[in-house]
Amino acid sequence: MYDLIIVGAGPAGITASVYAARKRLNFMVITKDIGGQTAWSGDIENYTGYQFITGPDLTAKFEEHMRRYNVDLREEEVVSIEKRGKHVWVKTLKQEYEGKTAIIASGKKSRELNVPGEAEFKNRGLTYCATCDAPLFAGKPVAVIGGGNSGLDAALQLNKIAKYVHLINISPDLTGDPIMQEKVSASPIISVLNNTKTLAVLGDKFVTGLKIFKDGKEELLPVEGVFVEIGLIPNSGVAKDVEKNEWGEIKVNSYNETNVPGIFAAGDVTDVPEKQIVIAAGEGSKASLSVFKYLNKLR
Amino acid sequence: MYDLIIVGAGPAGITASVYAARKRLNFMVITKDIGGQTAWSGDIENYTGYQFITGPDLTAKFEEHMRRYNVDLREEEVVSIEKRGKHVWVKTLKQEYEGKTAIIASGKKSRELNVPGEAEFKNRGLTYCATCDAPLFAGKPVAVIGGGNSGLDAALQLNKIAKYVHLINISPDLTGDPIMQEKVSASPIISVLNNTKTLAVLGDKFVTGLKIFKDGKEELLPVEGVFVEIGLIPNSGVAKDVEKNEWGEIKVNSYNETNVPGIFAAGDVTDVPEKQIVIAAGEGSKASLSVFKYLNKLR
Repeated sequence: MYDLIIVGAGPAGITASVYAARKRLNFMVITKDIGGQTAWSGDIENYTGYQFITGPDLTAKFEEHMRRYNVDLREEEVVSIEKRGKHVWVKTLKQEYEGKTAIIASGKKSRELNVPGEAEFKNRGLTYCATCDAPLFAGKPVAVIGGGNSGLDAALQLNKIAKYVHLINISPDLTGDPIMQEKVSASPIISVLNNTKTLAVLGDKFVTGLKIFKDGKEELLPVEGVFVEIGLIPNSGVAKDVEKNEWGEIKVNSYNETNVPGIFAAGDVTDVPEKQIVIAAGEGSKASLSVFKYLNKLR
Repeated sequence: MYDLIIVGAGPAGITASVYAARKRLNFMVITKDIGGQTAWSGDIENYTGYQFITGPDLTAKFEEHMRRYNVDLREEEVVSIEKRGKHVWVKTLKQEYEGKTAIIASGKKSRELNVPGEAEFKNRGLTYCATCDAPLFAGKPVAVIGGGNSGLDAALQLNKIAKYVHLINISPDLTGDPIMQEKVSASPIISVLNNTKTLAVLGDKFVTGLKIFKDGKEELLPVEGVFVEIGLIPNSGVAKDVEKNEWGEIKVNSYNETNVPGIFAAGDVTDVPEKQIVIAAGEGSKASLSVFKYLNKLR
């Protein structure tokens, strides 16, 4: 039996594992991927200590840091996390693990548009990951859907790659960081369409266009790529018994405790007010230190 | 008038300034020093993304990151932070500044022993900063007072420098991280004295010894250096009106708000449950994002 099972290996899970290792806990990490959303990020300029680093490079630094401690890392998909008796049971598609405690650091996943054509053209011109797929659209006309930071980040990733970029924003104004809005304004190939709703994704074998609604009428936008960046939803479904807020985020107190003793949570899957790499890392550290105190009955 | 005045430039203040700059706020930073406790730390192995870095090196990375944004940084000593009317006033020994908001990120300072001889021999053999002063004690017998992480860190910093190190711990067991305890045990020159109280610092022009109480009797320990590492107290005295806990830490909610609207706080000066570089950095980010929302009346 483990002292601690960490679910997820983004900034929160990785930092939790570094702290658990330094506290000499007998722990394991279960995750589908390494780095989480950081791995798909473009340029990162706000992780303190790295003025400028790409998402994949920061992920590599994080992974090396974690692996330095010979962590017991399993690449498996978790299907449930529950407390039975005094312990926490984490079930994956392969087997079930027993721990005295668990930290849920499973992050978030992309929200879907829910319009006709979305499912049909997924990976056939429609994608949720600009970092992964932007290079596939060199010289092509594309649309990015979403006016927040992830939408702006995607548009900027496509800035030197695509032929042109329609940035489609359902709201009257962009909501991303001013510094990113300035970069978008400065781009000769990005045009912002505010107050614009996406109605359908069109195509043949691959995406050929978007049907949008703007200024009171439907319009057809010929594009060959569609990047959906309309927000994220927490990967909290596997934890049935822990309390969540209206957005499905796991509620934690300042000790990263959930309502279930022994189950802790950290990072973007929780209701921490802001979702940032440096915040998720701090929360992962705090969660492991709380687990250490819980195991030693210090709290 | 400023949108935001950040007091302190440790991991919390610096991260707050990076986020404020990226939100294009009109802000300034007032601080006595750069890096705070990080600058005096020895080896840092738990700031995620840097497997191993010294305190001064990480401080340099942080400072470069902050200065990249041409921050308005004043090296002044703050004497009071208060809300008058709708704004926050930060008074230093030189002048007074007006801001719509402030983030207090002033960190902690070393706790004193309060024994005879301490004040007399300060900087004459007695120090609170192993990183700054360890090299001055090459080949000399020294004592480190404190059995927590800072005591262990100081002892390890002296490990390859001093003749021998008495690690004086008032408790029955060391309380620092197991991984650091192991390194202390492995050292041939560090000896741990548990259940030991320091009674006085002795000397002539410089420190010559420590009077301790152990196993029911007084004892004299001949040393030429004394490193006091018995904990930290928050630099919160300048903020008279904000609510604090019994240890003088500023109470904040998960948005880093204090009880005074417009005054925020982040990092080691607050009641955040754990004091770690990565946690303070995360808190600084969260505080600036909360200030941004406050200024835009989003919250």
